[in-house]
Amino acid sequence: MFEINQWIKIKAPATVANMVCGFDILGFAVNNPYDTMEMRRVERVDASIKIINIDNYNLPTDPEKNVAGAALIALIEAYEEQVQLGNPKATIQVNQLAFEVKINKLIMPGSGVGSSAASSAGAVVGANHLLGNLFTKDDLVRFAMNGEKVASGVKHADNIAPCIFGGVTLVRSIFPLEVIALPSPILHVTIVHPQIEVKTSDARSILKQNVQLKDAIKQWGNIAGLVAGLMKGDYDLIGRSLEDVIIEPIRSILIPGFDELKLACKAAGALGGGISGSGPSIFFLSKEQTTAIAVEQEMKKLYTRIGLPHHTYVTSINGAGVEIELN
Amino acid sequence: MFEINQWIKIKAPATVANMVCGFDILGFAVNNPYDTMEMRRVERVDASIKIINIDNYNLPTDPEKNVAGAALIALIEAYEEQVQLGNPKATIQVNQLAFEVKINKLIMPGSGVGSSAASSAGAVVGANHLLGNLFTKDDLVRFAMNGEKVASGVKHADNIAPCIFGGVTLVRSIFPLEVIALPSPILHVTIVHPQIEVKTSDARSILKQNVQLKDAIKQWGNIAGLVAGLMKGDYDLIGRSLEDVIIEPIRSILIPGFDELKLACKAAGALGGGISGSGPSIFFLSKEQTTAIAVEQEMKKLYTRIGLPHHTYVTSINGAGVEIELN
Repeated sequence: MFEINQWIKIKAPATVANMVCGFDILGFAVNNPYDTMEMRRVERVDASIKIINIDNYNLPTDPEKNVAGAALIALIEAYEEQVQLGNPKATIQVNQLAFEVKINKLIMPGSGVGSSAASSAGAVVGANHLLGNLFTKDDLVRFAMNGEKVASGVKHADNIAPCIFGGVTLVRSIFPLEVIALPSPILHVTIVHPQIEVKTSDARSILKQNVQLKDAIKQWGNIAGLVAGLMKGDYDLIGRSLEDVIIEPIRSILIPGFDELKLACKAAGALGGGISGSGPSIFFLSKEQTTAIAVEQEMKKLYTRIGLPHHTYVTSINGAGVEIELN
Repeated sequence: MFEINQWIKIKAPATVANMVCGFDILGFAVNNPYDTMEMRRVERVDASIKIINIDNYNLPTDPEKNVAGAALIALIEAYEEQVQLGNPKATIQVNQLAFEVKINKLIMPGSGVGSSAASSAGAVVGANHLLGNLFTKDDLVRFAMNGEKVASGVKHADNIAPCIFGGVTLVRSIFPLEVIALPSPILHVTIVHPQIEVKTSDARSILKQNVQLKDAIKQWGNIAGLVAGLMKGDYDLIGRSLEDVIIEPIRSILIPGFDELKLACKAAGALGGGISGSGPSIFFLSKEQTTAIAVEQEMKKLYTRIGLPHHTYVTSINGAGVEIELN
C-alpha cells in the first residue's frame, strides 16, 4: 500500500478500437501518443476526487462530468463494498479515501484513438496501485467503462480493454464482461488524425440496426481469420482479414479522402487498416517500420493536397497497457 | 503415380459444420462415423467415371447426379487444363483418364454430419492420390464443393474443408476460397442423430436474410472467442464461446427436444454444442471422454423417452481428414 500524499506517475496509451472487422469487440494499444497523469491519495477534506488539468483542453473538473472522475467514483464504490465485506486488503475507511489526479492530456480529445479511455483507464489503474492492487484488470475495465459512458453515452470497453491490458484485446462479451488478451506478432502502426470533428454519438447513430446475414458471415469469417492470423503470427492472413463490409462503408463517408487514402496506404505496402474507433483518425498496420513510414508519407501527401490539417504518428503495438512509475 | 487398375482404399470422416457460432465458416472432422471407398484408375472405354454403390442407400450412380461423381468431373476438368498448360506432372491424356469408385456409405445420408461431403472429398483426395498428388488441398476443396452443389444446391465448404484438412477448419472466404487449419486441444465429441428428416434446403430457407447488428456483434465476439480458445487450448473459453444467437434459435425449432437436450448435456458437463450443420444431428463437445459418455446417456434417455429412433456416437476430433491406404 502506498503512503498518503506519495505521488505516482501514470502513462496511459492511446488505443485503436474495432481493428477494422472487429466492431465493438477488438482493439489494441499503441506506444504513441499517450497521456501522462500524476496521482496521489490525500487526506479527505470534502470531495473524494480532485481533478487538476495540466493541459489546455479545459475538460470538466467536476468528477461526475470528467471521465477519469466517473471511473474513480465507480472504483471508490467498489472499494466501499470490499470494506463492508471485510476484505483484509481494504483497510481504508471510505470517508477517509480521497484522490488527487493531475491529467496531462497528450492524446487529443475527439481524435478517435481512445483519449477518454486513456484518462479513465489511467485513473483506475493508478488508484488500484495506490490501494495495493485490490482489484483485477477485469474490475478496472468495468470501473473505467463509466468514464466512457460520460464521454459517449455508451459503456463500451473496446478502448478501455486494450488500454488496461495492453496488446490486442478481444471483448468477447460486455455483460458479463470478458476480456481476452490476444498474442500478436510485432506490428507497426501508422495513424493519421485529420482534424475534423466526428462525434462518437453521430458515428453510432448513422449505423444501420440490421445487417444482411451474408455480410455478417463475411465479417465473422474475417474476424476469425484476424484472430487466427494474430495468434499464428501470419502477416498475410492478418492483411487479408482486415476488411470490414459492415461498418466502414457507412462511417467512411464522414471522413474526407478515406477511400483514396486506403488505396494509397495499401499500395505503399500496408497490411491493411481502416477507421480507428468511430474516427476521424485512420490507422494502417505494417509488418516493417520502413513500410509504416512510407504509409505516413502517403497520409501526409493526401491531406496536404486536400488542405486538411492533420497529425500523423508512426508507432507500434504497445504490449504493456497503462504503466505506473514512482515519482 | 499409381499403376492403372491398382485399387486404393479411402477413409472419409464425418464432419460437423458451423460449430455452433461459426455459421458457414467453421467445421471439424470426427473419427467416427466415416465412409469407406475403393478407387482405381482404369482404361477408359466410354465414361470417365463409374460409380458403384456397395451400400443400401441407392444413391444415384450417374456421375453428374452423384456427389462423388460431380466432384470428380471438376477434378478431371482441372486436370485437362493442366495437360493443356503442359504441366509436367499431368501426363495422362484426358481421353484416356477414367476412374472406378466403390462407395460404402457408413455415414447416413441426411444425418447432418457431412455424408455428402465425405463422398465428394473422399473421391477427389483418392483421385489426386492416383494422379501423383498434382493438386493442393485448396484445389481439392474447390472440386469437392461441386458435390455439395449436387447435394444441397449450394457450393459450400464447411463440411468439405474439415473432411479434407482434418481437425478444425475456418473457411475465411469462399470466393476466393481460403481455408485455414486451426489448432485445437483434444476434444471429445458426442453426436446424436434423431431420425427425422431436415432438408438442408429447408433449413436454409427458414433463416432470416437480415440480422440485428447487436446480435451479429455477440456472434462475432463468440467466434473470436472460440478461435482464441481453440488456439490457446482454453477449454473454459471454448465452452463460453459455444453460443449461437442467430441461427440456432430458428433452426432448433425443426429438431424435437432440442432445448431440453441442450440443458441436459450441459448439466452432464459438456463444454457446449448445438446443431450439426443444418441438422438433425446434434453434437456436444467435452474435455473428458467420461463426460462425452455421460452426455451420450442423456441423449439416449431423452430420445428414448420421446420415442424418437436415434443413433449416437462418442468420438473425438479427427486430425487427419481423408486417409488413403493401399489395397
